[in-house]
Amino acid sequence: MSGGGPDATGRKAPAPYRRPVPHVSQCGIPEGCPQRAHYPAVMTSLSPYDNLTPVTRAAYRARAAATDIAPLPRAVKDDALLAIADALEVRTSEIVEANAEDIARAREAGTSEAIVDRLTLTPDRVRAVAADVRHVAALPDPVGEVVRGSTLPNGIDLRQVRVPLGVVGIIYEARPNVTVDAAALCLKSGNAVLLRGSSSAYASNTALVRVVRDAVGGSGLPADAVQLVPGESRDSVRELMRARGLVDVLIPRGGASLIRTVVEESTVPVIETGTGNCHVYVDAQADLDMAVAILVNSKAQRPSVCNAAETLLVHQDIAEAFLPRALAALAEAGVTVHADERTLALAEGSEAAVVAATDEDWETEYLSYDIAAAVVDSLDKAVEHIRLWSSGHTEAIVTTSQAAARRFTRLVDSTTVAVNASTRFTDGGQFGFGAEIGISTQKLHARGPMGLPELTSTKYIVTGDGHTR
Amino acid sequence: MSGGGPDATGRKAPAPYRRPVPHVSQCGIPEGCPQRAHYPAVMTSLSPYDNLTPVTRAAYRARAAATDIAPLPRAVKDDALLAIADALEVRTSEIVEANAEDIARAREAGTSEAIVDRLTLTPDRVRAVAADVRHVAALPDPVGEVVRGSTLPNGIDLRQVRVPLGVVGIIYEARPNVTVDAAALCLKSGNAVLLRGSSSAYASNTALVRVVRDAVGGSGLPADAVQLVPGESRDSVRELMRARGLVDVLIPRGGASLIRTVVEESTVPVIETGTGNCHVYVDAQADLDMAVAILVNSKAQRPSVCNAAETLLVHQDIAEAFLPRALAALAEAGVTVHADERTLALAEGSEAAVVAATDEDWETEYLSYDIAAAVVDSLDKAVEHIRLWSSGHTEAIVTTSQAAARRFTRLVDSTTVAVNASTRFTDGGQFGFGAEIGISTQKLHARGPMGLPELTSTKYIVTGDGHTR
Repeated sequence: MSGGGPDATGRKAPAPYRRPVPHVSQCGIPEGCPQRAHYPAVMTSLSPYDNLTPVTRAAYRARAAATDIAPLPRAVKDDALLAIADALEVRTSEIVEANAEDIARAREAGTSEAIVDRLTLTPDRVRAVAADVRHVAALPDPVGEVVRGSTLPNGIDLRQVRVPLGVVGIIYEARPNVTVDAAALCLKSGNAVLLRGSSSAYASNTALVRVVRDAVGGSGLPADAVQLVPGESRDSVRELMRARGLVDVLIPRGGASLIRTVVEESTVPVIETGTGNCHVYVDAQADLDMAVAILVNSKAQRPSVCNAAETLLVHQDIAEAFLPRALAALAEAGVTVHADERTLALAEGSEAAVVAATDEDWETEYLSYDIAAAVVDSLDKAVEHIRLWSSGHTEAIVTTSQAAARRFTRLVDSTTVAVNASTRFTDGGQFGFGAEIGISTQKLHARGPMGLPELTSTKYIVTGDGHTR
Repeated sequence: MSGGGPDATGRKAPAPYRRPVPHVSQCGIPEGCPQRAHYPAVMTSLSPYDNLTPVTRAAYRARAAATDIAPLPRAVKDDALLAIADALEVRTSEIVEANAEDIARAREAGTSEAIVDRLTLTPDRVRAVAADVRHVAALPDPVGEVVRGSTLPNGIDLRQVRVPLGVVGIIYEARPNVTVDAAALCLKSGNAVLLRGSSSAYASNTALVRVVRDAVGGSGLPADAVQLVPGESRDSVRELMRARGLVDVLIPRGGASLIRTVVEESTVPVIETGTGNCHVYVDAQADLDMAVAILVNSKAQRPSVCNAAETLLVHQDIAEAFLPRALAALAEAGVTVHADERTLALAEGSEAAVVAATDEDWETEYLSYDIAAAVVDSLDKAVEHIRLWSSGHTEAIVTTSQAAARRFTRLVDSTTVAVNASTRFTDGGQFGFGAEIGISTQKLHARGPMGLPELTSTKYIVTGDGHTR
């Protein structure tokens, strides 16, 4: 597909791209077809076409672009991704300048330094984003993968192949690097993307998307495959959530309240991500050194992320031996323990920071140097606690017992169950997926870390020689 | 798991079943836990627990049963399924009597004989339903299947395994056989099911579910794994659609208006099924005999089903040779053709029943002996027509050209694309899945015919030796 000689970097320059599908104006969005069965909600509420709002118009353009890029072979998409990476590096100063506006506004508004740091793009960070894009280009293309295939008894060849989802909407918070990451993952998987970042990063995101679109368009692909959702108000999020038939899936990334709003109000299918009230359970039979190491790593290696542990459960038979050591190690890591009565009793005399837990602690995702702790009568009681309070993200058991490990992994219904390993491993990068668009905490479509295949659907291809029933 | 000697039928009698999970009252639904993060919508609108409506109470009981049956091994579930099949045969007269009430009511209400026929359960039909249940028992259990597995570079073993979805809600129309089919498929895949059939089949469904529940309970499994949603009014459907956190997925089966209502109003995730505005495209290069056979089979073999063809598209280069033969064959099959101008011109002088098409015809799922027909300038124009009007179920191309087949399959974005085969093959049974809970016409989770694996989610199991990050 891609011709042309090598350029100065040794990489082949993209050949002039010949669009392999009918042109958008012929085969894309049905401007003159308000009855289109696919788009009932939009069409009944928003006809004639002229009255479309900026958000819905962007969604229509994304739909047309999705139609164009869906059948593209890998080489064409990879060329566009490499062009994006190059452009990010060439135009770093433009991006950093725009970012400075957001930072100034954030500082004026008294935003915490932690959030300002997340918002900040330095030349080094832009280079790292460009490197991530090149990494996505190097990953295998999920589109076209034959998921299942067989010859049926009547001689028909049946194949189930991966196809792009179509239009993916991402709603996310302050980190502007997500803008480029999400665009790269969606492009690679043949999808168009509608990006709705935080209004606090609007200048940064506008600059990043301008650079990305220029690179995409320059590769001969439709620039509308990557769009920032217009408008900074909440209304634009609401419109995106109602664009049923235009947007194939919404992926909210961010805090629990953002995710809950999208899940409850959207009429577009949603993939819920991220809330992580994760547990570490230390079984009656456990290697205490291992248990301490896994506990501290799960809690304190990076407390602000969704796969950090938020509750420690300890079997009563091992509590006396384990908890004093665990509390000392947590104290050394700077962790405050919100303890039930039995844990409090064992903490007496220790130097650990321990406070009495309330029921609220069992359901809290601290995302900080805090952990809830309880002593349980049995493995089944630990499972019961987890079923009651967990958000279904990741739960770990530390045990030397094969029976306990089997029972825990069978009974716990979370995206990931870890045996003798830290909860922090629930991550697309750690799982070897090469990239991650989020961690689904729901059961439909995708569950757990989502890589490129999770940004696809499938279709069946039935091939016969005139077969009839 | 299942002991005991063979009974009179040669099949092993089910051993007394020892529940392998904590008892419901210990480990099931958190009666005293109104904060439970998993159930926010229900819990905020419906506390205290005493005030639950009958539908929500049923959903809670289903949730507890789902927890119990999720970890069951195949043998236990198969024993319950075989007990259901036996019970259906033993208690046929009870079922047929209840069915007679529904039929009498339907006749009084002046229901059409076609619908009365769908509603009718004869002893033979009950036996056929029992045979279907035995067939489901013989299918492989999807639960526990390792979908993906590897050892990560750090030595961690990663496995992605299939687990049940949890509580599945099925909303369906008059056919009472769906009641048992859906229950069997859900049980086999480790799910609890909430059945909401048509009120016109309420007596039949009540009798069937009574028999099924008795058999399930008699096998030592929780009878609440199969429940009829209480109440015949629309309110019970509405409550089911709002039981977010209690019901994991709703699958509406039936007419387009039922499906649209559920898709638009549900806050529970929905798998959209069934609407089929299917197309047959006859390419410029095509075997005319094959094209006629595929067209007639796609349209007329069983016009009332979702994979029947509703529109014929013919390339202009072959229209003159093909259409007169096609129209004659369709006339012979009793099909009325709703034709565009170019088709009308070629139909002059033929004996076929041909009427002029309006735009409405392109979007109509007739489900009758009617078909729309148009002549198109090119394959790309056929694709354009399909993109505009298709419901995305199944489209067929008849062609001798490899290039045309490749282009059509790549550009058409439907659950199934058939090359030189009838649209009627889009079916779980035909695809060799052994059973089908419906045909998904959406892109998330499952697309196309849904078998047992499509009634599952997955979880990741991470096993280490004390691994930390």
